[in-house]
Amino acid sequence: MKSKLPNLSTSIFSQMTGLANRYQAINLSQGFPEFDAPELLKKQLAHYSEQGCNQYAPSSGVAELQAQIAALIERKYEHVVDPASSITVTSGATEALFVAIQAITQVGDEVIIFDPAYDSYKPAIELAGGKAVHITLRSPNFRIDWQQVNLAINEKTRAIIINTPHNPTAKIMTAQDVAMLKALLVKHDLLLISDEVYEHITFDGHIHFSALKDKDIFSRSFIISSFGKTFHCTGWKMGYCVAPHDLAEEFRKVHQYVTFSSFTPAQLALADMLKEQSAHLDELADFYQQKRNILVNALKGSRFEVLTSEGTYFLLLDYSAISDLNDIAFCEYLVKEVGVAAIPLSVFYDSPPEDRIIRLCFAKHTETLINAAHKLCEL
Amino acid sequence: MKSKLPNLSTSIFSQMTGLANRYQAINLSQGFPEFDAPELLKKQLAHYSEQGCNQYAPSSGVAELQAQIAALIERKYEHVVDPASSITVTSGATEALFVAIQAITQVGDEVIIFDPAYDSYKPAIELAGGKAVHITLRSPNFRIDWQQVNLAINEKTRAIIINTPHNPTAKIMTAQDVAMLKALLVKHDLLLISDEVYEHITFDGHIHFSALKDKDIFSRSFIISSFGKTFHCTGWKMGYCVAPHDLAEEFRKVHQYVTFSSFTPAQLALADMLKEQSAHLDELADFYQQKRNILVNALKGSRFEVLTSEGTYFLLLDYSAISDLNDIAFCEYLVKEVGVAAIPLSVFYDSPPEDRIIRLCFAKHTETLINAAHKLCEL
Ligand SMILES: CSCCC(=O)C(=O)O
Ligand SMILES: CSCCC(=O)C(=O)O
Repeated sequence: MKSKLPNLSTSIFSQMTGLANRYQAINLSQGFPEFDAPELLKKQLAHYSEQGCNQYAPSSGVAELQAQIAALIERKYEHVVDPASSITVTSGATEALFVAIQAITQVGDEVIIFDPAYDSYKPAIELAGGKAVHITLRSPNFRIDWQQVNLAINEKTRAIIINTPHNPTAKIMTAQDVAMLKALLVKHDLLLISDEVYEHITFDGHIHFSALKDKDIFSRSFIISSFGKTFHCTGWKMGYCVAPHDLAEEFRKVHQYVTFSSFTPAQLALADMLKEQSAHLDELADFYQQKRNILVNALKGSRFEVLTSEGTYFLLLDYSAISDLNDIAFCEYLVKEVGVAAIPLSVFYDSPPEDRIIRLCFAKHTETLINAAHKLCEL
Repeated sequence: MKSKLPNLSTSIFSQMTGLANRYQAINLSQGFPEFDAPELLKKQLAHYSEQGCNQYAPSSGVAELQAQIAALIERKYEHVVDPASSITVTSGATEALFVAIQAITQVGDEVIIFDPAYDSYKPAIELAGGKAVHITLRSPNFRIDWQQVNLAINEKTRAIIINTPHNPTAKIMTAQDVAMLKALLVKHDLLLISDEVYEHITFDGHIHFSALKDKDIFSRSFIISSFGKTFHCTGWKMGYCVAPHDLAEEFRKVHQYVTFSSFTPAQLALADMLKEQSAHLDELADFYQQKRNILVNALKGSRFEVLTSEGTYFLLLDYSAISDLNDIAFCEYLVKEVGVAAIPLSVFYDSPPEDRIIRLCFAKHTETLINAAHKLCEL
């Protein structure tokens, strides 16, 4: 059988978590919190299941959750969306990304992505018959050269995918970036897929510019977010897509044949959580900024160079002063010999630069971060 | 924006359930049970979530659930599969179908499906750049003409999708069907996607011939099943795909970029359910045969002609003696004027025949079935 994804194998996240378990290493590779989901969320999950809400949800999501998402968007971005026609609940942001890409990419279309890029963008584009056009961002600042983006656009270009706050670089797009983006979208009549799953996790006063904030951007956008990152429940695989009515309609056509709907009791529980404990979201940035600071401070005595993390729960480290190994070999060494699992940055590139950089996830208990930093300081 | 699915709108199931709710009709349209999930399943869902199992499951499923599925397959079909390399847990059978189709369909490939066909097959094939080749089955027996299938196969044909027990016709493939299928698969070196989500729901001594039972068929097959149908939890969106190692590998490559993984606490709960209450599965056929009998008997006084239901939780009714309306118009009339929601059979065809047939779901309490039949008997 001819493979549809001939150059791909098991995702780096599965591979590294597998190695971390095998070698009993501290797992700072795959991005998931060591903290549990809030009590209310778990309680309401049990409640709605016990009460018998175990059959199909509407394909676009239960109305209570759509309404609470709309309320959150209004509160945070001062943007009023009609929940029934604009918001679609999905089985994780991964599904939302996949569906949005499928909904807009025809055979031969080009979609612009920024490397380092989340690993699902490119295969999703290729499975839709499209071509991923890679704009490479350079360490240590990973700023976007919008002139280069402009040059990459041609009549086949259908869309741009952005991700802010950005995994894996932990950078946040600036107001100027957003202005440049908007100009290009309008000038070339392009669609935008805006992956904002870390929207609530921003540090040091950096502001998250959501595509929801600008009506001209929103009118051509799919905005994607995730409850897993926000409520420490990555295993629930719950996310959503917000889009204007016409785009949401195309999104839903595809979504209904990809998963149809998502876990009913979880949707109802998330609605209650958003309604009753929205403060959790407001406290998330401070919570993770403290985690970041703990890890950065604990690495002060190391020979790693710490790159600035402006948001997300990731931190990049340059190990040039420590080893000549390439980053994949270095991560193998780290997990097997040092007892810390990390992600090599090169896997997020189509044409990896010569960097020596790894990614750590700091969504962990203080003790875990300190223990990992201890091991890393010995290098 | 150019639509990827220009001829499709909201699925018939969403539409009819929407109308049923709006007109407060008895909803025998979309297929979901009125019975709740078993207590143990709900209890264990709450338990594992409360215990903190709320982060990503492995992309191919938690090992406990894979092992229990393998045990079920060995018990039921006397076929030993390696759970770790053959079984992938998915977010419902819909996801499994979508992923299997994506994994094997290259642009220009043809995939044979039998009409009336479940509504997701064709869009999934088209989104993968393939072409659905329709073999039309004729009422009232809906038998497959294998000679016609043979003639439909050419060098572009990649796979055949079968569904047994069959939704919406409620027919079960015979041993002879399976022999003919096998001969064609081998002769033309084709792959098989075998949708067996109603595998446990068979009546009157009809035997379910799983693709798992025959090593030569299995070696080229993706077998898809669903926990929603089996454990009355359609809203949990949990299913799985069994395939030989090489096919499972390609399936997983796609799956990891479609949803990555499925609801962790539900996977652990389903593993316990399969382990501790597997008798539930053995009782399912009798349980639903009684439901079918109740509905069939209650319709004895009506002017509908009842077609034989050999399995699934569906029953077809021919209303030729009652109305000249086409089936879509008749279903609209039923939901608005009679108070019963049904599914028109024509929506499952690419080129609908002139039949006047509707589908009822009998996964309902006896009282519900009796009430619905009362209304239908008045026609
Ligand atoms: C779906 S596993 C990947 C989790 C994640 O977002 C990451 O580690 O970058
Ligand atoms: C995913 S909604 C459709 C449910 C079903 O299988 C049917 O009604 O045929």
